[in-house]
Amino acid sequence: MIEAVVFDAYGTLYDVQSVAAITEEALPGYGEIITQIWRIKQLEYSWLRSLMRRYQDFSVITRESLAYTLRVLGLEYDSDLFERIVGKYLELELYPDVMPTLSAMQSRKLAILSNGSPVMLETLVRNSGLDRMLDATISIDSQRLFKPAPEAYSLIESILGVPPADVLFISSNPWDACGAKAFGLNVAWIERVTPEAMALAFVKSDVVSPLTMFNAIRTQIDELGLKPDYRIHALSELPGLIAAHES
Amino acid sequence: MIEAVVFDAYGTLYDVQSVAAITEEALPGYGEIITQIWRIKQLEYSWLRSLMRRYQDFSVITRESLAYTLRVLGLEYDSDLFERIVGKYLELELYPDVMPTLSAMQSRKLAILSNGSPVMLETLVRNSGLDRMLDATISIDSQRLFKPAPEAYSLIESILGVPPADVLFISSNPWDACGAKAFGLNVAWIERVTPEAMALAFVKSDVVSPLTMFNAIRTQIDELGLKPDYRIHALSELPGLIAAHES
Repeated sequence: MIEAVVFDAYGTLYDVQSVAAITEEALPGYGEIITQIWRIKQLEYSWLRSLMRRYQDFSVITRESLAYTLRVLGLEYDSDLFERIVGKYLELELYPDVMPTLSAMQSRKLAILSNGSPVMLETLVRNSGLDRMLDATISIDSQRLFKPAPEAYSLIESILGVPPADVLFISSNPWDACGAKAFGLNVAWIERVTPEAMALAFVKSDVVSPLTMFNAIRTQIDELGLKPDYRIHALSELPGLIAAHES
Repeated sequence: MIEAVVFDAYGTLYDVQSVAAITEEALPGYGEIITQIWRIKQLEYSWLRSLMRRYQDFSVITRESLAYTLRVLGLEYDSDLFERIVGKYLELELYPDVMPTLSAMQSRKLAILSNGSPVMLETLVRNSGLDRMLDATISIDSQRLFKPAPEAYSLIESILGVPPADVLFISSNPWDACGAKAFGLNVAWIERVTPEAMALAFVKSDVVSPLTMFNAIRTQIDELGLKPDYRIHALSELPGLIAAHES
């Protein structure tokens, strides 16, 4: 039985690419590349700080990775512009199938487990109206280690009281799906970019769009010796998947 | 006093870009992008496996990240071709100033501290003739955690018997320089791509070369709240830098 359905936030329920409109407006011509480098470095910094035992919460890491990105691109900016871009992380757009999918699963415990800081997550969840749908919004912050450390995933049982075997964890992030699987959760990975679409983007491989490079690094299932239990293409597949899992 | 001078291997003494000739010959049109994605994922996997407590040595990670890269690009290959590419990691080219610089510092303890597996490192060091110049080639393998975990850097003292304050650690990898600094070593970071060159590569930012994207992610000093003690542009600066440090 799946007693709890637990979601990753960034990239899974919330579209991190939705910052591109703000970055393009703020720094014309650089909207997309800022978005991609920012997100790549944001995750890297979460892993590096975890390994170095130099934890800072995700709001600090989000700011530091944005500062890195703007510096590398040689872009000048003032603090107003910086705050406008970073503020978008508190108002990311939900993927369109989030609300109907969560509505269809209200008989289960529903939660988020995210690298985000408690303040970031509470604000984001409230701003998007998801607070009414969720039983818990769990930040890894109390562990001072980011996903995919097992300590992060252990918070699901300690906060929801549901053992790993009765949890379905959903993430579009391949490294997160693998980390959850390594910990022992049931895992559904959302494949947002198919292998066929990915390969096609590289037919001319000497120049690529920043999005193509991002997709190549961050959207395909990783070679980490672990396989998610399920591969889906949209959140709307979940109610049917759970029914099949339980039968 | 600097009693020991310890070098990172991949990207610092050995040019990881030197695999591009082999990959381009093996898979024409894809040489550069294979090199860049492979190296990005190789490091990611070392961090992710460390965090997940699913250590596999760097030879496994190097193979898995290459398999990922070829799959994402939609490339077909047989095992001969795969072995030919991965084999290049045992015969990487030394940067041209390595030999003269090490020769000029033979009065110090000289060593490598690398994520590489013991077999990979021994073979690489022997193939390049560096075995005659070094007092030790230290793999992080015994700790089952990759750099930048502090356990990795602690091997310098336990193997060479030199405390952190008397060690100069050199890396071109920004995350490695920051990790070594966090541990308490004296650190010289090699800036291989200047900020000016980096920014210029992005004047047209809607398409970029894979090398530009790689450089943007991996060559500029990171925002991790840590600063290497020295920023140099070539290994040949080291003898002078050490003299100045000790005076």
